[in-house]
Formats: sequence, C-alpha cells, structure tokens
Amino acid sequence: MKKILLFGLLFSCIFGLNAQTAKEEIYANVQRSGGNYYAYPGPENAKQTPPPAGYKPFYISTYARHGSRFLIDEGDYTKPLAILQKADQAGKLTPLGKEVMAVVDSMARMSRGRLGELTPLGAIQHEGIARRMFNNFPQVFSGHAYVDARSTVVIRCILSMMDECLQLKGMNPEINIKNDASMHDMYYMNYDDKTLDKLRELPEVKAAYLKFRNEHTHPERLMKTLFTDENYVKENVNPDILMKELFNLAANMQSHKYQTNMDLYHIFTKQECYDLWQVDNFRWYIDFGPSPLTEGKMPYVEANLLNNILNTADTCILKKGNGATLRFGHDVCIVPLESLMELGNCAKEISNPDQLANEWRTYKVVAMGSNIQLVFFRKQGSKDVLVKALLNEHEMSLPVKSDLAPYYHWKDVEAYYRHKLANFRNSKM
Amino acid sequence: MKKILLFGLLFSCIFGLNAQTAKEEIYANVQRSGGNYYAYPGPENAKQTPPPAGYKPFYISTYARHGSRFLIDEGDYTKPLAILQKADQAGKLTPLGKEVMAVVDSMARMSRGRLGELTPLGAIQHEGIARRMFNNFPQVFSGHAYVDARSTVVIRCILSMMDECLQLKGMNPEINIKNDASMHDMYYMNYDDKTLDKLRELPEVKAAYLKFRNEHTHPERLMKTLFTDENYVKENVNPDILMKELFNLAANMQSHKYQTNMDLYHIFTKQECYDLWQVDNFRWYIDFGPSPLTEGKMPYVEANLLNNILNTADTCILKKGNGATLRFGHDVCIVPLESLMELGNCAKEISNPDQLANEWRTYKVVAMGSNIQLVFFRKQGSKDVLVKALLNEHEMSLPVKSDLAPYYHWKDVEAYYRHKLANFRNSKM
Repeated sequence: MKKILLFGLLFSCIFGLNAQTAKEEIYANVQRSGGNYYAYPGPENAKQTPPPAGYKPFYISTYARHGSRFLIDEGDYTKPLAILQKADQAGKLTPLGKEVMAVVDSMARMSRGRLGELTPLGAIQHEGIARRMFNNFPQVFSGHAYVDARSTVVIRCILSMMDECLQLKGMNPEINIKNDASMHDMYYMNYDDKTLDKLRELPEVKAAYLKFRNEHTHPERLMKTLFTDENYVKENVNPDILMKELFNLAANMQSHKYQTNMDLYHIFTKQECYDLWQVDNFRWYIDFGPSPLTEGKMPYVEANLLNNILNTADTCILKKGNGATLRFGHDVCIVPLESLMELGNCAKEISNPDQLANEWRTYKVVAMGSNIQLVFFRKQGSKDVLVKALLNEHEMSLPVKSDLAPYYHWKDVEAYYRHKLANFRNSKM
Repeated sequence: MKKILLFGLLFSCIFGLNAQTAKEEIYANVQRSGGNYYAYPGPENAKQTPPPAGYKPFYISTYARHGSRFLIDEGDYTKPLAILQKADQAGKLTPLGKEVMAVVDSMARMSRGRLGELTPLGAIQHEGIARRMFNNFPQVFSGHAYVDARSTVVIRCILSMMDECLQLKGMNPEINIKNDASMHDMYYMNYDDKTLDKLRELPEVKAAYLKFRNEHTHPERLMKTLFTDENYVKENVNPDILMKELFNLAANMQSHKYQTNMDLYHIFTKQECYDLWQVDNFRWYIDFGPSPLTEGKMPYVEANLLNNILNTADTCILKKGNGATLRFGHDVCIVPLESLMELGNCAKEISNPDQLANEWRTYKVVAMGSNIQLVFFRKQGSKDVLVKALLNEHEMSLPVKSDLAPYYHWKDVEAYYRHKLANFRNSKM
C-alpha cells in the first residue's frame, strides 16, 4: 500500500494530478509556458524504485528529442523584427517597443546560419541524460556493452546523439558504440504519415481550435505598451500574430541560457503567458496527442517506431550481452509515441479544452530533450524479463496489469502493444 | 645528410618520385585506380621524426575528408542498371553481361536510402586516424585537453567527426570535446567559390580535357564482353559513358569492404583501369589542383579555410593548455588546401597531362579519409613554436626554409601563408 501511494506520488510529479495546477506551475516558473521550447529540467528528484530481488538491468531502449535549439524558420526572427522596425521608422514605438526591437534584432543576428541548431544548453541536457542513465543502470553499460545509436537525419538530433555517446564513452571507455543517421531509418525514426495528417484539417477540428484560440488571445494590453498609436496598429499590425511571434521568441530564449541573458518574458503578464500556453497546449494535443477531435488516431503516426522498439527489444533480449538502443528525434514523434505506449495518463482522451490543462501539459511531455527510456531487467535462472518505463526519467505506469509496478512482465507489455498495432493495421484494410 | 636522405625517402613514399610509377602502383593494387574512391590505407609504415630536444607537441589542427561512402547520386547506380536491363530484355547480354547486371542490381538495392552515406569502413578509417594521432602525439590529448571538432553540415562528415571524437574520448575520458556542424561555419569548411569555379568552363580547359579523355577511353573491348550484338550497342548504348559508370561502381566497391565482397574490377583490364584513372586524375588536377590550365588559381577556393587554420592556431598558441581543432569535410576542399599550403610537391604546376601521373596521384592525396595534420611543438622557456605538417600521416615539406625540417618555425610558415593570402586578396581588387 505504501508502495502504491509512493508510486502515485511520483506520477503526480509529472502529471500534476492532485498537485499544482498548470496555472500555478506556470506562475511559479513562467518558462514552463514555453511548452515544447521548455528547457528539460532533468528528473527533479524522481526516485528509481529498486527492482524485485535478483533482477538486474541489461538493456535500455530509448527515444529522445534533441536538446534546446534555435527557432527553425528565418521568419520566426525576421517577421516580428520587420513589424517593429517599420513602426520605429514611422515614430510609433514606445520606449519599451524600442527595447523589444533591439532584443529581437540581437536574436535575429544570433540566429544567422544557426537556424534550428542545437545550442550549448541542448548539448548539456543530453550529457546529463546519458550520465544519469549510466548511473541509474550501470549494469547496462558495463564491460564491452554494445550501444546502437541512431538519429534522424537532422543535425541537431545527430549532435544530441554525439553528446550522449561521448558521455557514455567517457564513463566506460570499453563501450562499443555504433552510430548512424540515415534516410534508411526515417520510416520509423520520423515517419511522415500523410493519411493521418489529414485529420488535423477537418472543419470541426479547425473550428474548435480557432474558438479556443480566440477566447484566449488578448493582445490589446501588449500592443498599447509597444506602440504609441492605436490607429497605426489597426492599419499596420496583426496584433494576434505579433503577440504570438514575440511569445515564441520569449519562450525560446531559455534555449540560449549559456549564450545570452536577454529576456522578453517580462513584456507579458503571467496570465497572458498562461493563456498563450493553453492555446499552444491544445494545438499540440490535437495535432500529436490522443485528442478525440482527431479521433484518437494521431498516436498511430508512430506505429512504425513502436514496432521497431518491439522488434529490437526481441533481438536484444535473445543476446547474452548488455547494451542499449538509443534513438534521437523530434517533438512531433515523442508526443504520439508517449500516447501510443500509454505511458502514465499520456493517452487520456479529453474533450473539453478548458479541462486539458488539468491533465496534459506540454512542458511535462515535450520539452527540449524529452525522453522515453524502456529499461529491461532479468534474473539469473529465470526467463521472465521485466521492464520499467521512464518518461523524462520519471517512472510511468504501462497499460497492463502488474503486481510489481512500476515493473511489468515484458511478455504482457509486448503482447499488449503488438495486439494494439495489429488492430490498427486491420482497421485500415 | 642522412636525415635529408631519409626525409626525401619519406616524401617519395607519398609522391612516387624516384619510386614506383603510377602505372606500377595501380597494377600492383588496382584499387588505387579508384582515385578519390580509394580507401585510405593508413600511413603505410611512415615514421615520425622526433622533434628537436626539449620540444613537445601541444596543439594539432586538422582538416580531414570523411571516410569511405556510398556513391552520391541515385543515377550512379540506376543509370548503368537501366542500360543493362534494357539489353537483357532484348536478349543482348552475354553471360558476363548478365553477371554484371546482377551485381549492379545488388549495389543499387544496397544504396537505397543510403546515398552518400558513410560506410562501416569509413567509420573504421576515422577511428584509426584518431587512434594513431593520439598515440603519435599523446601530450596533445593528455589531461583535460580541449578538442574543438567541427564538421560541414553533411552527415557523412558529422559521423566521421563522431568516430574520431569517440575514439579520443575512449583513450582519455578526461578530454573536453566540443562539437558542431553548422551553416555558420560553411564559408570556410566548404566554401562555394562561384568566381573561381568559372575557370573550369574556359574553352581551352574543356578542349584539353576532352582531348586527353578521348585518347584514354577505349570501351570497345569491354562492350564486346558485355553485349552480344554490336549493332544493338551502336544504337542503344553510349559506350564511353557506360564504361565510366561501371568503372565508378567497380572503384567504389572497396568502400563496402565490411558489407559485401562483390567485385566489378575483374571486368576491366589493368591497362583500362590505369587509363580511366589517368583521365580522372587529370580532371581532379584541373578542377581542384594547381593546374596551369585553370591558371594555378583553384587552390585559392580554400583561402577562407587556410585563414581559419592560421587564426585558430594563433589563438590556441596563446592558450596555456593543450588540445586540438579537428575539421571534417570533403575531397573538393582538401585537394585545393594541400596545394594552397604547398605540402610536399602538391602545388607543382604540370602542363603536360601525360606527365601528370609521374607527379600527382589522386589516390595519394584525395582518398576517402584523406587528412592534413598540422602539429605544433613548444619548449619550456622558449617562445619559438615549431610546426610539422602531415599529409595522410606522412611528414611533408612546407614552403619555407628550415634547418630543422620536417620541423619549421611557425612564425616563418604563418608569415608565408598570410603574405600569400594577402597577395591573392589584392590581386582581386
């Protein structure tokens, strides 16, 4: 009973059930409103429950998002800058408006030739993940452990892979590391599912999102602080868009922790940050989560990835040695995968967008550096393999019964997932 | 005197002066005819001359080409395959033609999703380069050595970087490695010089190349061995192109040493291999070497790269610690750089293409994994820094006088290069 209570407590750390509301959490640390730009804070005092007597970890299978990065599109920097510069030339910026323009200009210059790239903080995040993974499960990485590391073909993912591998190699120089980043693996590392993508374009999906967005977007106050002339704004600025663009810049500045201390969060109220986060949270839930709006099907964009995890585990369980399969990819993959795997309550279907923030929070599930670890355990003389799932280094429940939770019998977990994938394949026929 | 003789002998190993002719070398090992596809064989018994008394290595600056790879364009595999398949359907292939078709088909399948990618052999080449660099100059990588590793944005280069860095980290886990692969660095890591590129299009350059190519391309024998019907060949096949395409495939199969033992070299005579290599050697010399045809200017496409090497060395010499700057890039960069730096006789201008093979051989200067190492030495209590240059791990002469060769006073070398770059800049004004 004590164990179950403790376990429930651990879950609540990730999902905020019976703990702080999203609003409280964001008010306590506004950087959480960055959502998928939130800088991975590490496991925040998560405990690792010891395995049942005699069981030792021998294999880890992961999928991790790259670490903190620059924004991806040049326009993310230059579009808001152009609006502010035009207003400045017309003499329509307040002193705060001029200050914001200067910051955006600096960010735009910093980003030249660096769009989408991993930042120094991003590298440090992955070094930390690898260091803790090694320390939590040293038997997996002992001796001539075999590590098969794979990345999507996107450089920020490849460099994240390199940072983890270098960390592991430094901790045990005898580790054998094989690495790859190939188009050959993209069908499961970052699958482009053109069929399921269409669900996002359904009229009722668009209508629900726009309604929620309009209810939670209030740029009037911000515009008054930046511009001196309401008529100028009316004729020259789209306040909704400018507010969102500046908010994205504000949110992603935490990616540059070791490069600059520039800040834009101070131009927003905490309520505005919470509102804009809620809109973005809803967007993520619709596009990549288990939203009923998209028929609960978006998680299946990662069917190939889960299938690869199952097949690779089957092979590695047969091997006598110890080692790991490390995969490095993207936010748009890890969110569906968490839901497809039903980690904790990641697969919960929530119809009312006003309730969403109580149950599902981007900054808990899709921060820069977010990661899933499946850790496999075996006991000498037994064929029963146990598995434990970590999301962002917190123990997670899996969608099968277990009297050993957070440890599960792999044969049960595998059967559940294979059955689920087969059902999905059959439903398409 | 003895030293000078020995040194001359070492040079001759790389450049074949007073040693085997290119023809002899290719007949002895036909894989050399692969030219830029030749798999880096390592330093082949090269000796490291001990530094003058009291001098110790403290810094290394490198530029290395990625290791062995797949061919880059899909057509490299599919175009010759289509020619053979069409002839097969028309019943015009000999048994050897059918065998070649099967091999090309297998290679084409192997390459799917892998175009341009590093092969397992490519990874091993860079592990070896790093291991020997560490063992040759252990002081550079001792303690908390700082290694700044940079790659072009091309994945085969990034993975080559990763292989070297993992090797170094395994040999000394205390090394600090920073790595990057950014558009931000491409202006020197792989500069796209649109002005100098035009020299290759001059009518006299094209005419000289075509004349030499036509003199050395004789596909008649090969066509007879592949096809049963001369009229069919006349109407459906461009023999020059098909021969060159099959030769490229044959040459690059050595990149797949640890993946397959398929072979196509056996369909060519050694004389044909030597002839086709000569044509390709001439092309490389014109396009990226110091050829008088392109006015001796092609080496200057790497002016930014040499400038970066000089500036980085200046900074690293000022630092008290030890470490390295490792750069990973391409064949089209390392050939001009070798010539711009005047390593050994890499800058020699040769007008007669029939003489070229005596002086300049692609398989010596632009194999997969080719690398330049500048190794810096200092002595306690002295401000004089010495430098030694290695091309493919062989000691090279530098274009300044030295009574300590293969060691040179860095101040002399730097002054020479800076003067050379300044002259080039001024000539453009």
